Formats: sequence, structure tokens, C-alpha cells
Amino acid sequence: MPEFDVVVLGGGSAGTLVATAAAGAGRSVAVVEAGLAGGESPYLACIPSKSLLQSARRGETWEHAVARRDEVTAHLDDSAVASRLAEAGVTLIRGTGRVGEPGAIEVSGGAGHSVLGYTDLVIATGSEPVAPPAEGLTDVPAWTSAEALTCPDLPRRLIVLGAGPVGCELTQVYASFGSQVTLVEAEDQVLPDEAPFAGEILADALRRTGADLRLGSAVSKAEALGSGLALILADGTRLEGDRVLLATGRRPRLTGLGLEKLGIELTAAGAVPVDAGCRVPAADGVWAAGDATGLGCYTHTARYQARIVAANLLGGSRSADYRAIPRAVYTMPSVYSVGISPRHASGLDLITAGQDLAETARAAVEDDERGRVELYAAAGRPDILVGAAAVGPYAEEWMGEITLAIRAAVPLGVLADAVHAFPTYGEALEPPLRELAGRDHGKDGR
Amino acid sequence: MPEFDVVVLGGGSAGTLVATAAAGAGRSVAVVEAGLAGGESPYLACIPSKSLLQSARRGETWEHAVARRDEVTAHLDDSAVASRLAEAGVTLIRGTGRVGEPGAIEVSGGAGHSVLGYTDLVIATGSEPVAPPAEGLTDVPAWTSAEALTCPDLPRRLIVLGAGPVGCELTQVYASFGSQVTLVEAEDQVLPDEAPFAGEILADALRRTGADLRLGSAVSKAEALGSGLALILADGTRLEGDRVLLATGRRPRLTGLGLEKLGIELTAAGAVPVDAGCRVPAADGVWAAGDATGLGCYTHTARYQARIVAANLLGGSRSADYRAIPRAVYTMPSVYSVGISPRHASGLDLITAGQDLAETARAAVEDDERGRVELYAAAGRPDILVGAAAVGPYAEEWMGEITLAIRAAVPLGVLADAVHAFPTYGEALEPPLRELAGRDHGKDGR
Repeated sequence: MPEFDVVVLGGGSAGTLVATAAAGAGRSVAVVEAGLAGGESPYLACIPSKSLLQSARRGETWEHAVARRDEVTAHLDDSAVASRLAEAGVTLIRGTGRVGEPGAIEVSGGAGHSVLGYTDLVIATGSEPVAPPAEGLTDVPAWTSAEALTCPDLPRRLIVLGAGPVGCELTQVYASFGSQVTLVEAEDQVLPDEAPFAGEILADALRRTGADLRLGSAVSKAEALGSGLALILADGTRLEGDRVLLATGRRPRLTGLGLEKLGIELTAAGAVPVDAGCRVPAADGVWAAGDATGLGCYTHTARYQARIVAANLLGGSRSADYRAIPRAVYTMPSVYSVGISPRHASGLDLITAGQDLAETARAAVEDDERGRVELYAAAGRPDILVGAAAVGPYAEEWMGEITLAIRAAVPLGVLADAVHAFPTYGEALEPPLRELAGRDHGKDGR
Repeated sequence: MPEFDVVVLGGGSAGTLVATAAAGAGRSVAVVEAGLAGGESPYLACIPSKSLLQSARRGETWEHAVARRDEVTAHLDDSAVASRLAEAGVTLIRGTGRVGEPGAIEVSGGAGHSVLGYTDLVIATGSEPVAPPAEGLTDVPAWTSAEALTCPDLPRRLIVLGAGPVGCELTQVYASFGSQVTLVEAEDQVLPDEAPFAGEILADALRRTGADLRLGSAVSKAEALGSGLALILADGTRLEGDRVLLATGRRPRLTGLGLEKLGIELTAAGAVPVDAGCRVPAADGVWAAGDATGLGCYTHTARYQARIVAANLLGGSRSADYRAIPRAVYTMPSVYSVGISPRHASGLDLITAGQDLAETARAAVEDDERGRVELYAAAGRPDILVGAAAVGPYAEEWMGEITLAIRAAVPLGVLADAVHAFPTYGEALEPPLRELAGRDHGKDGR
């Protein structure tokens, strides 16, 4: 049985990073991956979605947008990533891995059956979409986001289920290119986990793009029609469409991995439990990173955890700090949140200060007045920020400052003294920072 | 003689802010301004320049761009600012103020002659362009940037003197709209005060816009021609154009103010000397803010100093911190620098780490691979950043994080642990931050 210092289950954003770092430090490393080397983000998720949104922003045709998307995703050819892994000294094993017994991974599919020995095991198997439990939904023409993002079809009538980040991005994509999109969300706002103002501004933007929004609407039943489907909502409304896109959430992809043989019990959310060092506490020499940990379905979280696994696996002692992990939606305008959301403040008494982007000179120059930022401190410790949300052009870029402020616990007095270039959107941060710092000496006559 | 608690000389970015804040706190305040209430930034400088650059980016026609510029600058009508001052309780006095004797400002022009008494005096008179001392330059068709930015003319052949921020922005504006632009700079790089890589990338961008760049070329002589002018460079080259734009720097506008009557001696650079609280040390109850202090010709610096004057004038004790004042150029791509520049490191042994934006997923999605960021630490204190420079789309927005890092002296270990949303330009900061933090465990297989 071939022995490796490190076996990584899953060759996505987290797995390839850990594998490359460990191999770079001289470890023998195998990555077991049944799908595309590189994972979903570059081919089936983040990158194609952002490429289509970018094309929509530029007013390109659907055909052009699909061509560009397929180019940016390398036409789903993962050989460049496979070559980079090989150059880094990582053995890429095509197939599905599962724990045979402690210390041994059985690989099936790909080139037959084999067993790999390991000293350290890294679980980086990612996540998979979850369909809502509505009757009949498995029998109608449905898309996962991965299918939508690799398909050249532009449905005439598309129903999107779920107004989280993925559902909102794809609603805007398809509505921009001319589909009649109906967005159905069981909760009462778009982006149900985020600040209400953010959901409201984004909902307006999606409506302006032409989408029909049905908020507070659970799906109770789906029926296949001759060409398409009908959805029955809880209030009895009947919607018809040519296709339904399922964007109702994801869960860690762990079924059949045999983790119980290592004594690992999944969390209530079905994730691999990890400590701050990304170790799996129940099992020596076992680590996890990425969506499998259930700690945020974002490529940047996966990469962050992967760096921590790599550092600790190589003898370091790094701890993950989850206070300031970005949550970004790349719609027009973008939505960016970080830290505590007012929708999940769990008993914290939040102190809020906000500013409309329309008050900035930048908005006047850009001729785009949409957007707002809100900053949150907590009553128990009012000298630092604990969370923030923003909607506006490039919010994912100019909110980096606030992300650092939360991560580094920069005192509000210092934050309020930072100077922003004129004219930028970043200037919108200044009045709420001064307000929270208790330095707001009235309007400044701008 | 009308007595005011505060008389402000100059109604620009700094003056209006101090005046409004002081009036809001119950002080009687007069602002003396001979030009536009609101100063140059909103009418003659920042705002029209950014508006024209934005129009160029969007591919608008020159006529459309001029119409939009004139709308954004309110057709040089300052009545909205004047109304806001009046609503704030500030007395706006149209005319030119000068010190008559300590405690008394004489105002001429406007509605005749008057004398104002003051308890506190704020010098916020801004700056004025300086022409290079070349023979004949006063006798040829020349533009200041303020004239260029208020004029509907699109010269066929434009010569721009000076490749600082203003010269570069206007070179790109006019070249984008079809003028044949020659940019002449005595120093050997575009943006002579900034990191060489920044100057090189911007020079390439300006050349791609169609401009002809003459670097390391001092002007020795100008001659008026029948329709236009000729410039003779130090190496004998002769350039012909229809107009020349003077963008060779600015100096504090202090001539004839009578500051010597208050015992104020200007600095070697011709500026009003101020301490960290923006007090003029030589004279009790006298303050200065903005370009008059010679500490950076930026609207945001003026506003920052104005807030400090306002706070201290009202009994506070704030000090200005100039470690992290942004220097932004709103070209395509943007250039942003902050803190120490490698061109002015004055004996500091800088440790540099950089990253090309082409390495980011964002660049692939945006289909624009230009740009780079460099971060600087100093050998004597390698645990914090002392400066940074970046060229790239929205650099003025995503560099806010680094600006805060320098201002707050956030340790590099913490900076390197901050997570950036995927895919953003902000991710370009991560490899150099990890390198400077000593945490760079090899390439990560992306």
C-alpha cells in the first residue's frame, strides 16, 4: 500500500492549497479528487458567476457572455491545475476516497481500486446543494447553480428558489440577459442572513433588472408540465416556468466518507467539527478545511483554513480567527458584510451608525447614488467595531478597511482619525466612524 | 467694526468645514472668500477632473462629457454652498481679506471695504499654480488646470507641462477624447514623487491612451506662434501645440495677506507653519488648514486639518497624524500611495514586497491584468508597514485597508491574517503581507 505523509480528500480550493504547501515543505502528499482538480470555485461557482455578472455590467450579449465565461473557466479543463499540482510534487489521484480503517484511505473509481496509507489526513471535500423538501421537486426540470453556470441555455422563464448570495447573483445574471426571472424566498427579505437595509437595496436592484420577487413565500409543491414546471407556493400562488434553479443552501459533502471509523461525530449541521487550529479533535492527525467544516461556504474561508492546516501540519501553531470573514455578493450593486449581522446578533445590544453613499462626492461623480453602509458596535464594548454591512459599487473592495478594523480590533478613536482619499466611496465610512467614536461635531458643510 | 468669534480666510474645503463646525457649536463665524464658496475642489479641480475621467472611461463623447462635468460642478454656481453656510449660521463675506492689525481683518472687493474683528483667525486660503521659470511662457496660450477644467475646448494639439497627479489626469482626459497630447516632465518618470513601478505602469497607460511622453525633459523656452506655440526643451527638441497646460505644481496662496503683522514667518516652502494641532505657533488664536499649510495639496488633507482646527478651536486637543495621508491619481488605472514613498525614504532602509494584480482571480474575471501593489516596511521596525503604493482599478478604494494599517500601526502578523473576499483586488495584498510577516510558506497552488 502506497504510504503518504499527507492524504488530502478533495482537490478544491482548500485541498490544493494544503497539498501544495505540504509538498513544498518536503512532505509526500496525495490528493484524492473525483471531480475537477481545483474544485468548484474556478469552474462551477464563484468564477463563472462573477464572469457573467461582469458581462451583464458591460452590456455584452448572452452568447458573448457565455463564451467569455467558458474561457475564464478553461472550458472545464482542469489540466492546468493538475500540472501545477504535479510540478509542486503532489500526487493527484482521480477517484473517490473513503476511510477504510484508521491510517488507510480506499480509493474507488478512476483507475480501479487502491488503498493509500497516511500519517496526516485532511478532509476538504467541500459541500453539495440541498433542495428544499417540497413535494415533486425532484421530478421537474431543475438546475443546481453548478449546472446553470456551465450551461449555454438562457431559459425564457426561470424560477430561482432561494435569495441567498447565489440565488441573488444568478437572478441578476439571467434577468440581465433577458430571462423572465421569478425569485422565490421563504424568508421575508432578500439575503435573509444580512442587515435588512442590504436586502432592501438589493431587492430594488433586482426588481430594476426585471426580476419578480416573491418574498416570505415557501414552496409547497412542484408539478412537471409539458414543457416546464409549475410551483405552488404556501399561500396557494401558482408560478409557471421553463426551469427552476435550486439555490436554497448547501451542506458539507461527507456522505459515505467513513469518518465514523475514525471516531468522528458530525456536528448538528452535518459538518466535521474542528478546533481553532483546524484539527478534528476526535482523531489524531486528522484535519479539515473548507465547506466540510460548515464554517462559511466561501472560497476565501476555505483558503484561510487551508493555510492554518498547512502551518499546523508543518509544526506551527496558528489559530483561525473568524471574527472578520467577509460575506460578499457580487451583484450590481455589490453587497458586503463582515462580523456580526444584525439578523444574528444573538442577544448583543448593537449600536448602529450608517451613511448613504449618495452623501459622498464619489456618488455624484459616478452618477450612481444607490447604496449605504452601516457599522455596528456592541453596547458592552463600544470602543471597537463588531460588524458591518455595505451595499454599493465595489463594496467588496472598500470594505476591506472595515474588515481589518474588526479583525485587528482597531479602536474607534483611531478608525475615526483615518483619512480617506477624496472622492472615494470609502469616505462614506467617516461619518458613522466619527459618530461611533463620539466625535461627531455636527455636519461639516460639505 | 463687526466682531466675530471666528473669522475664516478662504471658503474652500477647509474653511467651510471649520466655519460650519464652529457655528454649529454656537460661535459667531465669518468666512471671507473672493472666489467661489466651496473653493476649487468642487468646481475647478477634483470634481470636474474625476467627472471627465469617468466620462472617458465610459466612452462618452466630449460634448456629453463637458455637459456632465458642468452639471456636476453646478455650472460654477456656488449658491447651494452659500445657502448651506447661511443655514449653518455662518456669515459669508464676498471679498478679499487681509490682516489690518492683530484682531482685525480688512475686506476689500465685494461690497466695498469693511473691517472684521476676530478672536480666532483661521487661514485657509488654499494654493495657486506655479509656472516653471521658462523664458516666454507667460506670452503663449496657456491654461491652468482650473481653466482647462472649466473650458469646453478640445485642443487639437495640447502640451501638458508636469507629470504629477494633475498633469497625468488631464493628459489622460484630453488624449482619451482625441487631442494629440504631449506630456513633458523634467524628472525621469511620470509621478516623480512616487514609486518607480507606479510611474512606469501609468506611463504605459498614458501612451496607450495616445499621449506622447517626454520624460527627463525640462522646458527652456516658449515661443508664441500664429496659432499656438512652440516649446524648446533643454535638449533642443522643439514641440508645437495649440495650447500648453501648466501642471508644474502649486504654492500656498498667501501673498498680500499681511501675515507678517501677526509675527508669522512663512516656511522655506512659502507655507504657514503649523503645529500638530494646526495652530500657528507664532500667533495666539491663529490656525491654518488646507493647502496654505503646505502639507499636501489634497481636499482630504484640507478636510482632515479642518476637523482638527474645529475640534481644538472648540476646546479639544486633537493632533494631526500625517503618517497615512492618501495620495491618489484617478487615472485608468488609478494610482494610490500612502505613507513613505521609496523616492523620499530619506535614509530609511525599506523592505519591499509586491504583487502583480495579474496574479489575482479578480483580474481574470475583469479581463484587465494591469497593475501592481508594493508594501514597504522599514529595517529598523520591520513589524509594521510604513508605506505602500498601488496601481490598478479602484486602487483608491481597496488601499483603504493599507492606509488604516499604517495609521493604526497594525502589526504585520495581524495584517497577514486578515481575510479578503474572493475574488477581489484586495487579495493581491495577501502575498506581500505574508512575505513581510515572515509567514510565506511557499506558493499555494492557486
